Amino acid sequence: MKALSEITAKDGKARLSEVTLANGKFQTPCFMPVGTRGAVKHLSSLDMKDLNAEIILGNTYHLMLRPGADLIKKHGGLGKFANWDGLTLTDSGGYQIFSLKPKVEDEGATFRSIYDGSSHHLTPESASSIQADLGADIQMVLDVCSALPAERNVLKDAVDRTALWAERARTAFLTHPTANEKQSQFGIVQGGTDTSLRIESTERTVEVGFDGYAIGGLSVGEGRSEMLEPVDVVTDLLPEDQPRYFMGLGDPVGIVEVVARGVDMFDCVLPTRLARHGTVLTSTGRINLSNARFIGDDQPLDPTFENSPASSWSRSYLRHLLVTGEPTAPRILTLHNLAWMFDFVSKLRKSIVDGEFEEFHKQTLEIWG
Amino acid sequence: MKALSEITAKDGKARLSEVTLANGKFQTPCFMPVGTRGAVKHLSSLDMKDLNAEIILGNTYHLMLRPGADLIKKHGGLGKFANWDGLTLTDSGGYQIFSLKPKVEDEGATFRSIYDGSSHHLTPESASSIQADLGADIQMVLDVCSALPAERNVLKDAVDRTALWAERARTAFLTHPTANEKQSQFGIVQGGTDTSLRIESTERTVEVGFDGYAIGGLSVGEGRSEMLEPVDVVTDLLPEDQPRYFMGLGDPVGIVEVVARGVDMFDCVLPTRLARHGTVLTSTGRINLSNARFIGDDQPLDPTFENSPASSWSRSYLRHLLVTGEPTAPRILTLHNLAWMFDFVSKLRKSIVDGEFEEFHKQTLEIWG
Repeated sequence: MKALSEITAKDGKARLSEVTLANGKFQTPCFMPVGTRGAVKHLSSLDMKDLNAEIILGNTYHLMLRPGADLIKKHGGLGKFANWDGLTLTDSGGYQIFSLKPKVEDEGATFRSIYDGSSHHLTPESASSIQADLGADIQMVLDVCSALPAERNVLKDAVDRTALWAERARTAFLTHPTANEKQSQFGIVQGGTDTSLRIESTERTVEVGFDGYAIGGLSVGEGRSEMLEPVDVVTDLLPEDQPRYFMGLGDPVGIVEVVARGVDMFDCVLPTRLARHGTVLTSTGRINLSNARFIGDDQPLDPTFENSPASSWSRSYLRHLLVTGEPTAPRILTLHNLAWMFDFVSKLRKSIVDGEFEEFHKQTLEIWG
Repeated sequence: MKALSEITAKDGKARLSEVTLANGKFQTPCFMPVGTRGAVKHLSSLDMKDLNAEIILGNTYHLMLRPGADLIKKHGGLGKFANWDGLTLTDSGGYQIFSLKPKVEDEGATFRSIYDGSSHHLTPESASSIQADLGADIQMVLDVCSALPAERNVLKDAVDRTALWAERARTAFLTHPTANEKQSQFGIVQGGTDTSLRIESTERTVEVGFDGYAIGGLSVGEGRSEMLEPVDVVTDLLPEDQPRYFMGLGDPVGIVEVVARGVDMFDCVLPTRLARHGTVLTSTGRINLSNARFIGDDQPLDPTFENSPASSWSRSYLRHLLVTGEPTAPRILTLHNLAWMFDFVSKLRKSIVDGEFEEFHKQTLEIWG
């Protein structure tokens, strides 16, 4: 089902919108936490509700291997399986698969399971069908994701195969007995850091026609300006009334930069991964809690963020739990970092409504740039 | 301060009581979860409040080494450090130290830190003073804990040294500037499985005079009947109006057996450790969730325990998280096992009030024996 973006405010290219899916709505700009195997690490669906999360990601690659798409389908889909009544999105598995050096042909990709080494095969059609079984509100097409930097011909081949797969994935989705009623399917624009290829990939993806559009294959190690240049040209070519999703981005600067270029959605493991390593997001920048300067510090993690779910405990106490390896620490830091990120995005949204996005953008670069 | 037990019901030797400490009261029989380093693994003080926990244990050995008693004192004691407004108890460190093969003399014990190998020394006096800094509501004397089985002369030496240390610990506690106002100090009865030595140790400990009494050095691998025989003779000699604490016990059968013999308090890492290994407490006995028979099982962990904090999720989902190593699983299983244990003890209490403890005892043996 077409994901419709109702734009309620704009400030430059930055958009505030409400996106309507088959089974619910969400506000953008929207940060989506990653629950790789059906749970955000250390958290439950009740925690995600307490955090007011709107959409949670699941990884098709992991879920198709463990516990398997059939099992999740039997339980009524990923949301019901995890007892999460908010919205869900599954990636296509492409990103993980391409990090495993798969055998790729026009027909599909053959790769090994990290769990038991067994061989698996994914095609644009099966990736869509598996995601229909996983039953998330949004499914993503299988795309070809090149590591960067890459030669132009490598990027061009990836764009071509991504376009070929996009058509087949769309046909599979639309002819699936139930997917289109319950789910939206997003296409993915590739092309690396090459602006002309990004333009070509955008045009070819929009021509196929999807329910929403993603920008893939960036934020994979390239420089910030290399990452941002293609974003502007892509969003200029995407339909205004459908959501735009930048895949794999979750740092404050990256978020304001892509929102400034008209992006609505983004996801990343960064806030939760940082938390597990003791790095805490605060209004004055990152702190690493294992640093000895926090011994005896009786302030909360971010003294200006009163609604943090970690505000009951001091840096001193949480540092102690962190450095002694107590699993309570990564849990509390994960809650904090996600709440902080949602609060950040909430302030970002408000700045768009108030026509103060440029100021918010500038402040974010000053603290985090 | 003397911990006063007001007995509100009895059924045989099983007692229901309300214990008054300097800063609060608690109900017995009482299961105390273990927060080794100031947190129960995977849980926070807010979780413990949700679970209606009354007292939480901290381990002096661990806390004196990391983060150090001085730091905890600076934060206002263990409860304030962890933002836990319920009651706390610290062990003396003896149990951990004796598992490290320390050098023990009449004066005290010298042992190494598991954190950095550094050498440390603990005396009855310093164990009391450190626990005064930790500031728990109940502190325990430093005792000599023999591994079992042991020769009678080894047990006798341990009883003698424990008695010597008890006197010195009591003097240190009573002459400490603030400890006696804020804390209660419990003596510990030793003597292994030797009934005559248990009698001697009880008499000598009661003669020193403590605010409450513990039975130590049991539930360390001996058989069930060897464990229980000394309990009866000890509780017969302990004052009626003070609490009795069996150290290191947390299985349903063990609990009913010691409560049947007049014990009020018990602690154990068992329910939380089992949870981390996927073993779940249920009304029909233990289940190991990693077992393949739980694949696709859409029941909650214990279908008859509706108030479980895990009741939102199926065995199938939690098994998936468990076998893929997701840290959400040990957290949810820990919450379940602790809630289950508190519910079990709550039913046990009710059976005493209702004069049906014998029936409860029998049923527990049938399911768990």
